Amino acid sequence: MSPTDRIQCPALQAKLMSAREAAALIPSGANVGMSGFTGAGYPKAVPQALAELMAERRAAGDAQFRIGLWTGASTAPELDGALARVEGIDRRLPYQSDPTCRKLINAGKMYYTDMHLSHVAQAAWFGFLGKLDVAVVEVAGILPDGRLVPSSSVGNNKTWLDQADKIILEVNTWQSAGLAGMHDIYYGTRLPPHRKPIPLTDPSDRIGEPYLRCDPSKVIAVVHTHQADRNTSFSPPDPVSEQIAGHIIDFLQHEVAQGRLPKELLPLQSGVGNIANAVLAGLNRGPFDHLTAYTEVLQDGMLDMLRSGKLRFASATALSLSAEAAADFNANIDHYRERIVLRPQEISNHPELVRRLGVIAMNGMIEADIYGNVNSTHIMGSGIMNGIGGSGDFARNGYLSIFMTPSLAKDGAISCIVPMVSHVDHTEHDVQIIVTEQGLADLRGLAPRQRAPLIVERCAHPSFRPQLLDYIERANQGAPSLHTPHLLEEALSWHVRYLRTGHM
Amino acid sequence: MSPTDRIQCPALQAKLMSAREAAALIPSGANVGMSGFTGAGYPKAVPQALAELMAERRAAGDAQFRIGLWTGASTAPELDGALARVEGIDRRLPYQSDPTCRKLINAGKMYYTDMHLSHVAQAAWFGFLGKLDVAVVEVAGILPDGRLVPSSSVGNNKTWLDQADKIILEVNTWQSAGLAGMHDIYYGTRLPPHRKPIPLTDPSDRIGEPYLRCDPSKVIAVVHTHQADRNTSFSPPDPVSEQIAGHIIDFLQHEVAQGRLPKELLPLQSGVGNIANAVLAGLNRGPFDHLTAYTEVLQDGMLDMLRSGKLRFASATALSLSAEAAADFNANIDHYRERIVLRPQEISNHPELVRRLGVIAMNGMIEADIYGNVNSTHIMGSGIMNGIGGSGDFARNGYLSIFMTPSLAKDGAISCIVPMVSHVDHTEHDVQIIVTEQGLADLRGLAPRQRAPLIVERCAHPSFRPQLLDYIERANQGAPSLHTPHLLEEALSWHVRYLRTGHM
Repeated sequence: MSPTDRIQCPALQAKLMSAREAAALIPSGANVGMSGFTGAGYPKAVPQALAELMAERRAAGDAQFRIGLWTGASTAPELDGALARVEGIDRRLPYQSDPTCRKLINAGKMYYTDMHLSHVAQAAWFGFLGKLDVAVVEVAGILPDGRLVPSSSVGNNKTWLDQADKIILEVNTWQSAGLAGMHDIYYGTRLPPHRKPIPLTDPSDRIGEPYLRCDPSKVIAVVHTHQADRNTSFSPPDPVSEQIAGHIIDFLQHEVAQGRLPKELLPLQSGVGNIANAVLAGLNRGPFDHLTAYTEVLQDGMLDMLRSGKLRFASATALSLSAEAAADFNANIDHYRERIVLRPQEISNHPELVRRLGVIAMNGMIEADIYGNVNSTHIMGSGIMNGIGGSGDFARNGYLSIFMTPSLAKDGAISCIVPMVSHVDHTEHDVQIIVTEQGLADLRGLAPRQRAPLIVERCAHPSFRPQLLDYIERANQGAPSLHTPHLLEEALSWHVRYLRTGHM
Repeated sequence: MSPTDRIQCPALQAKLMSAREAAALIPSGANVGMSGFTGAGYPKAVPQALAELMAERRAAGDAQFRIGLWTGASTAPELDGALARVEGIDRRLPYQSDPTCRKLINAGKMYYTDMHLSHVAQAAWFGFLGKLDVAVVEVAGILPDGRLVPSSSVGNNKTWLDQADKIILEVNTWQSAGLAGMHDIYYGTRLPPHRKPIPLTDPSDRIGEPYLRCDPSKVIAVVHTHQADRNTSFSPPDPVSEQIAGHIIDFLQHEVAQGRLPKELLPLQSGVGNIANAVLAGLNRGPFDHLTAYTEVLQDGMLDMLRSGKLRFASATALSLSAEAAADFNANIDHYRERIVLRPQEISNHPELVRRLGVIAMNGMIEADIYGNVNSTHIMGSGIMNGIGGSGDFARNGYLSIFMTPSLAKDGAISCIVPMVSHVDHTEHDVQIIVTEQGLADLRGLAPRQRAPLIVERCAHPSFRPQLLDYIERANQGAPSLHTPHLLEEALSWHVRYLRTGHM
């Protein structure tokens, strides 16, 4: 496909150049806001070209050429991976899941600021993150007047385009031209004290414009690419994921029966990954109809539910699809465009909207403790895994906050239910439901001492249950106070033991 | 004053009875929703009468007579204190600060569910807390049609009146009749999926009605009282509080100079206590004019600012005044009614509104750790102090989140900056600014490893600084990963040492 079909603005067509030429326009030390959310809609050529330039400069003795990298969320090997391999990122925010980035962050070679995804755009507007120098944004096309057809994610692109001094656009002709019209870019945000209510009351509401505004005079380069998004392949649901999904669906049915949820539930938010996909697969076979989703990421399971009709509408900020699902999505995009809207992440994750809609928040975690505190980000207290992402936006403000994990990790060496988590991302005040393949603990309204035995009995793996019950019993005897009884000298000893012996 | 001036509804006048008769209508095991927020507007007679009945039943061998007690927030000795002394509370939510309650909770004799104050009303509506049997609500008067003039706090009264099967009203003629018209009770809340935007865009906006609705057929008793609210006496600001206030005011001036805050700032939220009052006193002498407050509690310092004109308007859910300030308030209530609005706590603390208005959140804390996690609730990991209150509502959603504490406690035996907090109420993702009398650490945009030396150098007391820097240095060498370097075997050792030796 010729890029000229997609670049309809003559002034911007004149700025077509190679990725290498465009990358050369990014100065060392710049803060660069790139598109990309969960491996969708990230720039694919300029970051790699920039990494090559950095490698050349490294070879010539310049160890200093680095950028600050801001995105929507996680990207892909061509972006985070390529820049991390040349140690080209000084500071990374607000989320990453790249193995090379993770290695550098945990080696103390890259700074990482892990943020609530709903906070990022406003923090940039407020000036809390420093100056944004360059935006590098993938788009599906450029209209004659310079407006942009967004790609397979929206993320923070509106904010990067607004805030950056200079803009580099990657026009990716692999992305379906049919994406046009699927997005809803809300331009009603303001800085306080000038903010107004956000007029969205249903996941299907459109409150903005289908295109991104862009000042053509800020555009310093346009690059043509034709390359697929990172594939997110999912394994077929394993028995553990199926059991977790089963507990959640049973619980939702119970809540409907008790009159605490309408029969079409409330808008679903679902984290990414195999457990989340198993829950969605379960819902697709399950008893609920006319469902909606108000979530960050639309993955395979939701596409299946849209196809089956179980899901009437899905709002997200990004797609995250397997190769097969992406092919289906592109082939049937007219069907999906009536049923999907992609929004900026400040809207998809907005506390105002998550609370108003009453989202059912379902997020994975690394570990929970006996009092219901959840660690979503850290391995053994010190190392980052990925980041908090939007889990806090949804869990704090949703109607229900569900956290899920298998009860064991590392072939049984690690219990995901521990006396005290080694890092807290979601406090006891924000966690209502904990689920493992063993069962579900409903913590609503309970005091800490009531939560502990429930979490252990319902959620911990039997191989760790006696030790946990022993800790609870001894803490109830020996703790200095009994609101949240802890033996501080051994509260983190499970993690210490794992670090020393390889087993908790 | 005759109660009949205040009880203008004949049907409800007919239900006048003694506090003892009214208390006898509350069955054992009932969940009772009482009014009261920070020692204002709580029922003063019925709870004491109920405690007496419980004491009599205890003497007669009935150890089981207890209630579940739900309020707005903290109350006073006549309520929490009286019921706790007879061990009459089975489960307490969502906040308390009573010494007897605290003792029982920490002795394992009372369950306490510590909740975000913005979550309570909706959790009750959702059915997540169980059935509410009785509401006991102090009011300033009853209108001919049965509507209620709210008292000196609103708290969760609207929800308790709506949700309870039976209602007991305490008409307190000590409260100024001039309170009528000061309140704004928003009746536009709905259960999802029927929620609409809350139409409030300035702290001074009125979006509801001045009176509480009440179904007279649910009222089982009306009791007359004439008794002052608990006095909240403040010490004159001590040097430590003055220094903390000074750092905050310098910081706010810096933010205005940098263009990150308008010169009239943004709506202030301030926790309660001597440090908060010192900050308000500093602002009252300071360079800012035309300020507003959007907060939970209006204390002496804000009244001073309203009188001086520094503060143009204050929105809260409760008063918390010294005896002198209360006298001034009652004497000048017509002046204050133009400048103060009292709202339900679901509105004063609503995430939607806190974020829209861009509140400057200033809250006290017990301790912070070197990575910016904040403990607002627990003593040495196990014991409750008071509760999280609204600090999470404001810190998570505000424009700025500031946490403050003296750097030392217990005459220097405790450092309020520690390697790892013993309980997390506000995660690293929610804490922007930490202040002690030593200085202020601005954590915005920083990675954990950047925060640690800054917090120690700016905020820790010099007597603990070398130990903290030593921990950081050794953690940077010896931690298994360097994103958030921790030595888990000693991360909580400062607390353990304090428990063993009385000194960190």
